Amino acid sequence: MRLVTFESRGAARIGALRSDDGDEQVVDLLAHDPGLPPSVKQLLEAGPAIHQRLQRAIDSGPCVALRDVKLLAPVLDPQKIICVGLNYADHAAETGAKHGDEPVIFCKFPTALRGPEAPIELPPESSQVDYEAELVIVIGRRARRVSRPQALDFVAGYTCGHDVSARDWQKDKPGKQWLLGKSFDSFAPLGPWLATPDEVGDPGQLDIAMRLNGEVMQQSNTRQLIFPIDYLVSYLSHVCALLPGDLIYSGTPAGVGMARNPPVFLKPGDVTEVTIDRLGTLRNFVIAGGD
Amino acid sequence: MRLVTFESRGAARIGALRSDDGDEQVVDLLAHDPGLPPSVKQLLEAGPAIHQRLQRAIDSGPCVALRDVKLLAPVLDPQKIICVGLNYADHAAETGAKHGDEPVIFCKFPTALRGPEAPIELPPESSQVDYEAELVIVIGRRARRVSRPQALDFVAGYTCGHDVSARDWQKDKPGKQWLLGKSFDSFAPLGPWLATPDEVGDPGQLDIAMRLNGEVMQQSNTRQLIFPIDYLVSYLSHVCALLPGDLIYSGTPAGVGMARNPPVFLKPGDVTEVTIDRLGTLRNFVIAGGD
Repeated sequence: MRLVTFESRGAARIGALRSDDGDEQVVDLLAHDPGLPPSVKQLLEAGPAIHQRLQRAIDSGPCVALRDVKLLAPVLDPQKIICVGLNYADHAAETGAKHGDEPVIFCKFPTALRGPEAPIELPPESSQVDYEAELVIVIGRRARRVSRPQALDFVAGYTCGHDVSARDWQKDKPGKQWLLGKSFDSFAPLGPWLATPDEVGDPGQLDIAMRLNGEVMQQSNTRQLIFPIDYLVSYLSHVCALLPGDLIYSGTPAGVGMARNPPVFLKPGDVTEVTIDRLGTLRNFVIAGGD
Repeated sequence: MRLVTFESRGAARIGALRSDDGDEQVVDLLAHDPGLPPSVKQLLEAGPAIHQRLQRAIDSGPCVALRDVKLLAPVLDPQKIICVGLNYADHAAETGAKHGDEPVIFCKFPTALRGPEAPIELPPESSQVDYEAELVIVIGRRARRVSRPQALDFVAGYTCGHDVSARDWQKDKPGKQWLLGKSFDSFAPLGPWLATPDEVGDPGQLDIAMRLNGEVMQQSNTRQLIFPIDYLVSYLSHVCALLPGDLIYSGTPAGVGMARNPPVFLKPGDVTEVTIDRLGTLRNFVIAGGD
């Protein structure tokens, strides 16, 4: 199952992707069954009880061609956007950081979320905005103190994420907290769809890449994750309850802009594309922000 | 106006405090006017348009004695809980930190919120859980790139907050990010009520204290804030949109447990009380967590 949120007459609606003879279609789920929950988060909260209704709507609902639809972030209103730092060995090495025996955890504010094709706004407050391709884990049901063997049962699925990062804010502000440098509005593109685990296969064996204006800047595979998905879900659930719709940006591989010589930072007109096996491509456009 | 959220038959309801002949009463606002928004966040989102209806409900709605009511956190579902570190000169000095020319900003996950009289659960994952009394700013309407002179127009009011902190997690984890040490479930008590600015007077002239089992551990005044309230709202609004219901824990004064000799950490059975002028007392009970 591949779930999306799309815009229709200025409002957000839930949908699902269906391939008809190779053509990608967006099924308007509520048009078939108005009793379904109106957002992907509420769909996840409803759990397996609505699975059959959901499948019927996907099989029989009216469709629009994907190319004619404006997709939004597949989860619009997560309670948390948790992020993992330095979680690929090659990226940790390029930053000069050693990885410890526990992950580096920070977060982004939900106001940073954006959908596919949406602008990434460069704030006038930063001159070092960098890209990071990431696999994002979407939590499916409440997880509190779950073990590693249980952890994947609490995952609703996966999608592509872009952890946009103002390096000058991330590294040079008092207290060295990464939060603000990662939380400027538009710094968390997400999408294009939420793929359930049965669509994805082994989430620890996915190719992941970032292209900047068509050029490959990051290329790796999620098997390079230092702290894998089951570890992250279990670890975080020992601190706080993870709730349906919560997002975990699981870290980025080597090749970020600040580690290059000379460094590469985003500028207006740039096009960024995060591509992950079976999760499609999340494309965004960089513009000057500040209004 | 003093707004509260209270529990009635297992559900959260909005209310307001009214003093009748010196007796504190909770007005059940929806019992008088079922058309009012059902949560404090939605009340704030509705803005001045409903102010008159709200005032009529406060004046005429049915009451219950405050002592017979279970209060919850006045805002139950903020999108953000933003926190300011080292924002009192005396506290910065006791930690050995110098303060920079910008504030240290971190955050807590909303799953950490609790109401007055609720338990603070000591996680088995930490042996150094500390207390911090804080003035909390509640955002009233969307603020993006607002100036300092405008900033207070975006504040709905104030309440007491307790920034519970696992020091071993805050200081000793890889990456030195404070997020997880501040975000264990139950680490963000809030309340007892949200007081609008007209109730509070000058928010930069409020006595603030933390009592632990009746003993005064922190005692200061918000005039000691290094970065005052208008600065914080303006500064943060240049990074992200602040939304109705967003909370800003504005920092804690000297006297925290880790800076004492010997250090003082919370233990099961402890009672914490945050008291701020005109904002009442936020009392919580410390228990062993881990279930």
